[in-house]
This record gives sequence, C-alpha cells and structure tokens, in this order.
Amino acid sequence: AAGMKGLMEIILATHSGMSASDFAQEAGDWLRTTDHPKFKHPYVDVIYQPQLELLEYLRINDFKTFIVSGGGIAFMRPVTKQAYGIPPEQVVGSSVVTEYKTVNGKQELIRMPKINFVNDKAGKPVGIDQHIGRRPILAFGNSDSDMQMIEYAKAGDGRRLALFVHHTDAGREFAYDRKSHVGTLDKALDQAGANGWIIVDMKKDWKRIFPFSK
Amino acid sequence: AAGMKGLMEIILATHSGMSASDFAQEAGDWLRTTDHPKFKHPYVDVIYQPQLELLEYLRINDFKTFIVSGGGIAFMRPVTKQAYGIPPEQVVGSSVVTEYKTVNGKQELIRMPKINFVNDKAGKPVGIDQHIGRRPILAFGNSDSDMQMIEYAKAGDGRRLALFVHHTDAGREFAYDRKSHVGTLDKALDQAGANGWIIVDMKKDWKRIFPFSK
Repeated sequence: AAGMKGLMEIILATHSGMSASDFAQEAGDWLRTTDHPKFKHPYVDVIYQPQLELLEYLRINDFKTFIVSGGGIAFMRPVTKQAYGIPPEQVVGSSVVTEYKTVNGKQELIRMPKINFVNDKAGKPVGIDQHIGRRPILAFGNSDSDMQMIEYAKAGDGRRLALFVHHTDAGREFAYDRKSHVGTLDKALDQAGANGWIIVDMKKDWKRIFPFSK
Repeated sequence: AAGMKGLMEIILATHSGMSASDFAQEAGDWLRTTDHPKFKHPYVDVIYQPQLELLEYLRINDFKTFIVSGGGIAFMRPVTKQAYGIPPEQVVGSSVVTEYKTVNGKQELIRMPKINFVNDKAGKPVGIDQHIGRRPILAFGNSDSDMQMIEYAKAGDGRRLALFVHHTDAGREFAYDRKSHVGTLDKALDQAGANGWIIVDMKKDWKRIFPFSK
C-alpha cells in the first residue's frame, strides 16, 4: 500500500530482542488501527482495488498468488490474508536474523539486530527462488527495484506476463517516477517497450484506486 | 526417504556455478532414476506409506502440509510434488547462496560455493518462521535434530500434536537410535514422556513401510 515501504524499512531495523509473536501482534495492530495521513483510512485498507481484482481473478483461474516486496516480511505477514487474501507462507520480503530461544518457558524466535536478507532488486529473484522455488508466470511491479524480478519471470519458457504500475495520479493517489527518491520508475519506463513489459497508467487505466474510493 | 539425508549434505556443498534450473533438472532426474541400494526402487519411491496417508488425511481436513528437512531444499523440491503431493513452495530445507545472473542471455540463479542456511536443530524453527511464518499445529520428526521444531510446535496456544518415528525395523527398513551417527534419536526418547511427544514404533505400528511393499 502507498507509503508503507519506507515505513517497513524503519521497522525492519528496529524491535531487536522482541519475539516474532509479539512483533506480529504489534505490527498487525498498528496496521489495522493507524490511518494513512493522506487517505484517512487504516494502512491495512490502503490497498489497490485493481490489484485485489487481479489477484482474485488469478486465483479463480488456479494461479497461486504471492506478495514479493522489499518491505519487512514479518511486518507484512500479519495483515496480508485480511488485505490481499494471501497467507503468511506466500509472502516474500526482507528479514532480520532470528534466533530460537526459550523465554519464560516458551519457545520463541527472537529478532536480532542484524539484517538477514534484503528482498530488493537482484535480491527479488533470489527471494522468489528461496521461498517459492519456481519461476513466476506473471509478475507485477511498480519501480526499477522490480526490474530483476520482472526479467526473471519473463525469461521462463512459455507464455509470461510482466507489468509495472506507473503512479500517475496525484489527485487520487500519488504521481512520481523518474526523479523520485523512493519507488523510482525510470529505467523500467525506458526498457519496457523493447522487453514487452506492460506499463499500467494508474490515472488513465484504473477506475477505482482503493476499495473505499468512490 | 531413507538414506537421502547424507546424500543431500554432499549435494548441498557441490554443484557450484550451476544454475538453479539445471540443478533442479539434474536432481529430479537422479532421484527418479537411481535405485536405493537396499530397497531396489528409485529414491523418489522410497518414501513412507504411513507418511503419505497422514499427509493426505491432514490435507482432506484442510491442513496445509510442508516438508521441513535438514536436506538441501533445491535437491528435494524437484520431486516433492510427485512423491508427497507437496509443491516446491511448501518445502523448507538447507540452502546455498545463489546469485542472480544473466547467462547466455537468460536470467538465472547461480549456485555459489557458500552455505546460506542450515535447516537443522535450532535452525528448523528459524526456517519454519522464514518460509511459513506461522507456528505448526502438528510436527513429525525422526531424530534429535527435530527436537527444537517439535518444541516450537508444541509451545503454541491451543491443541498441538508432536510425533517422532523411531526406526525400529531392521528387516523392513532400518533399526537405529541412541548410538547412531546419523539420525540419532536419543534425547528425544528420554524427554518424550515428560513433554507429551508420541513415539511411533515403526516395527510395531506400521503395517506397510513403503508404497511398493507387500
């Protein structure tokens, strides 16, 4: 959802010493109860209506759907089922090292102050292979950080589909691309035509942005 | 399957520089075509009939089933669907580091000569959390290396079930436990009673060992 990514990067590096269970509880509570400053709805609801429709369409047609994000895997997982219909085991993301410990007589995984994996750029195909173990048939991105994932999906045998959302709607959502410091979409725009990547223009192509939009 | 584990540890450390796709092809071919020296059937068929029945029973009752093994994840995945009805994304195992590269114009993940993760002992709960992101309701092991996974599953809220197979059948399979150098089952036998872990006695409890057994 819009604005979640920068937030995730901060969360990723913090909360050391906390158990995975407590972290999941805290992250889930926060995402369900905190309003996005621009959209005035909880973060868990600031999700794209066309994305939900595509995910549902794919699942009806026997695709298995995954989230592959640069964000923290442990931060997203508590709400992905509610938000996207995607269970925790179908979420791929960045992570910190965890250690197995017994705390107050209960076995827990404890978050350590060390990055385990950065699921971004060339890390995305690595994360996909680690978690999924198959090359995606369809991949959908929204920034240059997704180019390697998109390339990886397209390089498979048979028919493949690769898409990028271009954030072009300053009124209903945000407009940014080449010069943006976060979510830069620049090289992907240049290379899309030659590679058969489809650019989705949010302003022109999306009738409704969020489930709560009119 | 019997004897696969030592083999996996060797495979894990080899094949550096090979693409993940080629490795999967080679591993799958090997497991489908190479006979187990004792059982005279291909490794892919040297699997436990009661395990297959339990997995199927769980899935019919809306459980999602996973393999969590110390073996190499990339070595197991090519055959887990055929052998156990478990797709690649539901396999957790040990892994080497991979790097995303373009080889002969095609994007591939290349195996590096470096261990990424050892999914054994205290690593098993870590691997489960990374891949699945939920605490198992039921866990089934067969050696002391599974104790942490079993503890982790049992420590969750609500009803939990923890089992170990005890390899007691020298005639139909193998008999080993406390003094064995591989697959040692020693501490788990001592601690089972106090912890409510169920020990399954292969010789007494299993009517048929392999699908191809009479």
